[in-house]
Amino acid sequence: MKFSRTYSLREIASILDVPYVGDDNFPVEGMNEIHVVESGDIVFVDHPKYYNKALESAATIVLINKEVDCPEGKALLISKDPFTDFNRLSSHFKPFRATNVNISPTASVGEGSIIQPNVFIGNHVKIGSNCIIHPNVSIYDHCVIGNNVIIHAGTVLGSDGFYFQKRPHGFDKLNSVGRVVIEDHVEIGAGCTIDKGVTGDTTIGWGTKIDNQVQIAHDTIIGKKCLIASQVGIAGCNVIEDEVTIWGQVGIKSDVTIGKGVEIYAQSGVGMDLEPGKTYFGSPAVEAREKFREMALVRSLPKLLEKIKK
Amino acid sequence: MKFSRTYSLREIASILDVPYVGDDNFPVEGMNEIHVVESGDIVFVDHPKYYNKALESAATIVLINKEVDCPEGKALLISKDPFTDFNRLSSHFKPFRATNVNISPTASVGEGSIIQPNVFIGNHVKIGSNCIIHPNVSIYDHCVIGNNVIIHAGTVLGSDGFYFQKRPHGFDKLNSVGRVVIEDHVEIGAGCTIDKGVTGDTTIGWGTKIDNQVQIAHDTIIGKKCLIASQVGIAGCNVIEDEVTIWGQVGIKSDVTIGKGVEIYAQSGVGMDLEPGKTYFGSPAVEAREKFREMALVRSLPKLLEKIKK
Amino acid sequence: MKFSRTYSLREIASILDVPYVGDDNFPVEGMNEIHVVESGDIVFVDHPKYYNKALESAATIVLINKEVDCPEGKALLISKDPFTDFNRLSSHFKPFRATNVNISPTASVGEGSIIQPNVFIGNHVKIGSNCIIHPNVSIYDHCVIGNNVIIHAGTVLGSDGFYFQKRPHGFDKLNSVGRVVIEDHVEIGAGCTIDKGVTGDTTIGWGTKIDNQVQIAHDTIIGKKCLIASQVGIAGCNVIEDEVTIWGQVGIKSDVTIGKGVEIYAQSGVGMDLEPGKTYFGSPAVEAREKFREMALVRSLPKLLEKIKK
Repeated sequence: MKFSRTYSLREIASILDVPYVGDDNFPVEGMNEIHVVESGDIVFVDHPKYYNKALESAATIVLINKEVDCPEGKALLISKDPFTDFNRLSSHFKPFRATNVNISPTASVGEGSIIQPNVFIGNHVKIGSNCIIHPNVSIYDHCVIGNNVIIHAGTVLGSDGFYFQKRPHGFDKLNSVGRVVIEDHVEIGAGCTIDKGVTGDTTIGWGTKIDNQVQIAHDTIIGKKCLIASQVGIAGCNVIEDEVTIWGQVGIKSDVTIGKGVEIYAQSGVGMDLEPGKTYFGSPAVEAREKFREMALVRSLPKLLEKIKK
Repeated sequence: MKFSRTYSLREIASILDVPYVGDDNFPVEGMNEIHVVESGDIVFVDHPKYYNKALESAATIVLINKEVDCPEGKALLISKDPFTDFNRLSSHFKPFRATNVNISPTASVGEGSIIQPNVFIGNHVKIGSNCIIHPNVSIYDHCVIGNNVIIHAGTVLGSDGFYFQKRPHGFDKLNSVGRVVIEDHVEIGAGCTIDKGVTGDTTIGWGTKIDNQVQIAHDTIIGKKCLIASQVGIAGCNVIEDEVTIWGQVGIKSDVTIGKGVEIYAQSGVGMDLEPGKTYFGSPAVEAREKFREMALVRSLPKLLEKIKK
Repeated sequence: MKFSRTYSLREIASILDVPYVGDDNFPVEGMNEIHVVESGDIVFVDHPKYYNKALESAATIVLINKEVDCPEGKALLISKDPFTDFNRLSSHFKPFRATNVNISPTASVGEGSIIQPNVFIGNHVKIGSNCIIHPNVSIYDHCVIGNNVIIHAGTVLGSDGFYFQKRPHGFDKLNSVGRVVIEDHVEIGAGCTIDKGVTGDTTIGWGTKIDNQVQIAHDTIIGKKCLIASQVGIAGCNVIEDEVTIWGQVGIKSDVTIGKGVEIYAQSGVGMDLEPGKTYFGSPAVEAREKFREMALVRSLPKLLEKIKK
């Protein structure tokens, strides 16, 4: 998430009422979760195990719970509770606003687009031209939809990421303030759910077609011309490259990359990166021919064991 | 389900127009399905195989299709079709009422709660304070939601339990007249479905966090501070104890208990009780390390068999 | 899809502006996808591999990209791009029409049926008597619902089939212009999605009961008195015969027939026809007892291998 203008380190520190290390006027352009930080961003870290990762990330301002040595060209915000202060900051810059009407007055809808009854379009949503948004679709604030996009009934775009931190008193939620970005010529089936990025974007690439009841979690990036069949679940922070085909009921865990042109057979469970151009099957998924060989072997076991006995 | 006042056995018998065994003024406080009966309840039974279970249950009034010996301190309602008469009784006391507006005039919403557009809130629903109910959520009659609860778009609370009896002419449905009860600080993702109890409650405990497209069936009780990932399906009459973690696309059959602190890996299928504090994997699920050992063994089979051949 | 009246071959050719082979007045009654063609129908074919299938199908008019020999009693429409021209034709006869109100003025709802708030009922939809349509249900144009049907909240009936053809520039969609037909006494849970037929019908038979979050794809026909548990996914063009029971999270691929009375255990993956009256389990599904035997064998492997070593 980028701010609407550049803030000074002093301004940010005063919003949070915390001490800081760095020049008063050190520039702060935005804030992001560690996966998607850029120069000018604030990142937060509250566990010594991850201090180095945060301090060495692209982020130039680190919201941290210990006054460590400040890396060259960076600044620190010293907080007793970086997680909570990060939330306070995102709520300050992007507060949740209730909407009283089906289509927010700050949303825009392009020429030739059809919005069917009972669709909710939140604040600052942008919808391109020649789209069809079918009934009972919900589009949360700040989502961006391209041209010639079709979204079927009951689908939800931009719900909060499932991102919780275990604390002694229970789970604390990291606010979701990112977006869902749908590129041109995408079609999304009925009853799908696509979460917004926690601070960045969840993206569906040009010409990708998604069947019904597909779940796509926060910050996942799906390439162009992919085909995703019904009831597939894709966890957060994944990269699905172009022209990937995923058959029904497949599950993909978080933080993996699925190479270009990969095909994943139905009901597979993917727990690691998959190499471009290959075909996978099984839970956990391996190359399909390997899985088929294993299955054939298991089926032949009774006879094999019979033989061995003799 | 408890009645709004105590009825006499004679009153109930006259609603159903059936004979009875017991004192005219024998007190009747409510009616419940066999899993959740208490003293003062009516229970029904229509198969000799289950007579004893019903007669020995906590229920003090038994709606039964044979005039059996009445246990001490209990009463009988003699019916040709206890299943249908039980439905007639629940329809009498808790009839389905259409609602003409998005938010029923008999629903209550606490201070600071935000109800987004296109939300349906049925009759007698109670929502606490500081909740956010996102667009296109449907909350059926009589559901109860605590404070600081977030429910994402398109989610359905309180749909009927999937409870049918096979009869010669087809499936007969047992009316669902229970509730969904959501405790404080729960968050429920988008596109979830949580059925009401058939006569009792389906409960989601304090601080539990549920991801998108999760299905929870009738009468299941979920403990405090559980984490349930996307596309999990939990069948009816289950007990999920506190601090259980269930990863994506897991399925859990009905009538099992998942012990405190259990972790279930993605795509597992659970068919039996799981012991507290352990980690499970596979379909059917077993202890994860056992499953991993089995998987490693199967993968090593080709080489092993090669060796044996030699 | 049948047209509202009989057209002449010349009329159809002039709509598409293409040459034709056959009598000017050759009768054209409708248009259908190859799976469901009848006499009087137009079928399209654009790959030489499938020419014979199309020419020998029940369809009497073939929209084709080469002037082949015209079979006796049939006619040809010669098109440079049969796929696109088929879409142009279906859009001509059944254009998508936006609806400005929740319940289209051309929809009909029978006596005693209850339509809850926020339900969308599209153009020309027919709903029988004594139905309950719960909140936030979306019913697309032309769907047909019988009597005594219950549809739970958030369910979508009649979304487009997931039917795309890969072309050099990306995926082209075959327009969905068929219907969903729900027979009497069916109950459908919350959050289900049932796609319309591409040109024909997706049908749910008399008395069938469907749990929450079930996905049924285009042109699938489900028999009478089936029981389908939660989160089942059934692909397109399937035939599920009467009295089939499918447990939770099962997936069924397209173009298979599930015989009468079959039972499929939870989380199975079905990739082929299943024989009537049998019980199946596993992914891929085989007869349950066979699967149980295989599972027992795999579990006993460590001990067996130990023995062999000795």
